[in-house]
Amino acid sequence: MPDDFSDITPADEALEETLRLLHEDRTGEALTQLATLHPADQAEVIAQLDASQRTMLLPRIPQEALAQILAYLNEEPRRSIVAELAPDLLGPVLDQVERDVAVDILHELPPERATAVLAGMATAAAVAPLLAHTDDSAGGRMTSDFVALQQEWTVDQSLSYLRQNHPQAEQAFYLYVTDEQERLEGVVSLRQLVVSEPEARIGEMMTPEVVSVHTTEDQEETARRIERYDFVALPVVDDERRLVGVVSVDDLIDVIEAEATEDMYRMAGLAESESLLRPLASSALPRLGWLLIALVSMSMAAIMVNVFEETIAKAAALAVFMPVIAGLGGNAGIQTITLVVRSMTLGELELRQASRVLRRELALAIANGVVIGVLVGILAFAWKGNVALGVVAGAAVLLNIVTGVMAGVLVPLSLRALRLDPALASGVLVTTFTDVLGFFFFLGLATLMIDRLA
Amino acid sequence: MPDDFSDITPADEALEETLRLLHEDRTGEALTQLATLHPADQAEVIAQLDASQRTMLLPRIPQEALAQILAYLNEEPRRSIVAELAPDLLGPVLDQVERDVAVDILHELPPERATAVLAGMATAAAVAPLLAHTDDSAGGRMTSDFVALQQEWTVDQSLSYLRQNHPQAEQAFYLYVTDEQERLEGVVSLRQLVVSEPEARIGEMMTPEVVSVHTTEDQEETARRIERYDFVALPVVDDERRLVGVVSVDDLIDVIEAEATEDMYRMAGLAESESLLRPLASSALPRLGWLLIALVSMSMAAIMVNVFEETIAKAAALAVFMPVIAGLGGNAGIQTITLVVRSMTLGELELRQASRVLRRELALAIANGVVIGVLVGILAFAWKGNVALGVVAGAAVLLNIVTGVMAGVLVPLSLRALRLDPALASGVLVTTFTDVLGFFFFLGLATLMIDRLA
Repeated sequence: MPDDFSDITPADEALEETLRLLHEDRTGEALTQLATLHPADQAEVIAQLDASQRTMLLPRIPQEALAQILAYLNEEPRRSIVAELAPDLLGPVLDQVERDVAVDILHELPPERATAVLAGMATAAAVAPLLAHTDDSAGGRMTSDFVALQQEWTVDQSLSYLRQNHPQAEQAFYLYVTDEQERLEGVVSLRQLVVSEPEARIGEMMTPEVVSVHTTEDQEETARRIERYDFVALPVVDDERRLVGVVSVDDLIDVIEAEATEDMYRMAGLAESESLLRPLASSALPRLGWLLIALVSMSMAAIMVNVFEETIAKAAALAVFMPVIAGLGGNAGIQTITLVVRSMTLGELELRQASRVLRRELALAIANGVVIGVLVGILAFAWKGNVALGVVAGAAVLLNIVTGVMAGVLVPLSLRALRLDPALASGVLVTTFTDVLGFFFFLGLATLMIDRLA
Repeated sequence: MPDDFSDITPADEALEETLRLLHEDRTGEALTQLATLHPADQAEVIAQLDASQRTMLLPRIPQEALAQILAYLNEEPRRSIVAELAPDLLGPVLDQVERDVAVDILHELPPERATAVLAGMATAAAVAPLLAHTDDSAGGRMTSDFVALQQEWTVDQSLSYLRQNHPQAEQAFYLYVTDEQERLEGVVSLRQLVVSEPEARIGEMMTPEVVSVHTTEDQEETARRIERYDFVALPVVDDERRLVGVVSVDDLIDVIEAEATEDMYRMAGLAESESLLRPLASSALPRLGWLLIALVSMSMAAIMVNVFEETIAKAAALAVFMPVIAGLGGNAGIQTITLVVRSMTLGELELRQASRVLRRELALAIANGVVIGVLVGILAFAWKGNVALGVVAGAAVLLNIVTGVMAGVLVPLSLRALRLDPALASGVLVTTFTDVLGFFFFLGLATLMIDRLA
């Protein structure tokens, strides 16, 4: 968390102006204009450039400024930009970013390149141990640049210690207290320190039981915990409960955003890394793969319809209602699955509540299914003047709405029970159920009543 | 943001244990067990109870504890719980929660009830002015309980001021500096104050240009700004740039979560307030409304198919491929719209980039559409032994994937251009396009080539 509040919110005009200068190849002026912006806004501008504009600009930005910009860039543009920087430039730049950001960037590099860059870093000794943690764990998100006090210190001693040793420590909202073995013993907030008597002992004022996370804890669990307790930072401990780092809320906001994005993308069969800003070629194969999965799924619906081809040949009006049956079941199913997946992500729905949720959604499906089914039945009769068609279409709509809602509850819960992500491709799984079973109900009933339909 | 770190993370067992005691009607023991938990975890337990269990428990929880629990509850369970509390109990409880939480709760009450509760509050004078701001603005999210320093004060004076006047102020990470008219002039962090010389003047050490938000600014814009600059709090100012409050990151995390939920729900046609934990009756009508919208949309597809009923009567095999054509276009469209909506929410895609994104997605759609179209064509020919059927199905797949992707870009961008939420019902809008046009392409081509199909 920066102390750098300078530069009032960029008028969007400032952004536009810089982009315009760049587009006109007035690089020098663009650099000057860029330098007047907050680093967060400089990052925004850089992210919107294409590779050739960046090649023109990046080598002319001072190292310190470049370090700040990297800290504020989102993952996708940052990955491309880092790839464009010479390794002997990247090392010194990474020396100047926060350690957790340096670790993130090194993790994104190919291993050989990461090793080369690390070798050129002055802070290699401090950063290297952090690289051992996987990127999506608390250990991978933490910074090792924190302040630890000791129980026997007074408030006055602690303040002096802060003044002398940690003028730049960014994690100074909470001050953690450790013993000689560096084990986490308690916490005081900087605010507490400031409002306490100078002679008071840290040991007496600290809160002894601290909510902490283990280095290996998943980043989403970590984010969920910081959110639940409304903290701005959480201490990270190892197996011996030694304090090894701190994760702060600004890093975890990114995790929360990424988690929501991942759910939405997975439900639609998109890779987490997919982006409208990515090179076209890298998107083509994953998207094609998804269409192939959709094709397999739709082929099952086609095979089901094929079973009843003879029935349709006798009463072609049935084909008219096929999209209605499939679509209503699919929409009901997508609604339920969206609710279930999001509730699971937010920790509001556990497996043990499955039967309660299933009963609730089933009751809703039957109530609404009856209403919509009767309506479809009446409309079908009114349109085609055939009572049997109305009955068959209405009944199929009811059955398929129930199918969709059941699939909407059971598909994500089953994925979770199998320890898979509930959001995984679940959109297409649910519509496969509603297509295949919807056509089975509709065309099956129609076959039974074919004498009254044809 | 609390300083209350006490109580180590609740083992999930502690939660289970309390729930078990309650289910066995051992209310006294349950209360004792509950009191050992962190308020965030007490809130978690309370949220999982049904109304009758809460009626048993809530009146027996001390006011201070109840206040803490309310602060940690999510919006939906909180709304029900507040409704169950007697107005003369609620007032004193709200006196003990943070002012922004009190305002949120009062906003959720029916106006007459809010007035009655406010009348019973000791802090009514401080809370009432905050009620003027709408709930989803920075003004509605801010607390007025902040610390303001003055330029001419020394560090030592400021620390004394903090000690005497604001021992409980929760917003002490950043200290804002104001002039005599209470206008925002600058900011120092508590960390800066602590590490500076006691004689230093605030005016010399403060950052003069502060990123701030106006009271009327939308809460999502506010969240986006705090996230962009990695702050833990933002000052809120009025028309005269007077400092009137502070919004903190923990409040805005909830906004970010809610924003992601809203996008997912709206794309699936769910109300923002929908929840698996809501009473069944309150979900039934909105969900029915959505099914009616889906029915209208699907009816358009049915009308399109109806135009070609005669063609299907001649070649019933066409009906077999209808779900494949519609499904592939729909899936491609849902992928694109998911990407576009999420990118717009995250501020990564602006209207002016529309044509670039359209070209990118169009190129992808054509490339993948050709591959999948040829594949479907070959499969259709191999299955039904009819070349014309393969050609018609393959061409319709290509055209419909392109349709889906175009709709996936244009529907959300058009909604945005109309100043509507891009996520608004865009799922069903896109599949309406792909159903109606998909059937038009497929059955239209089939009609042209009917001599080779029948």
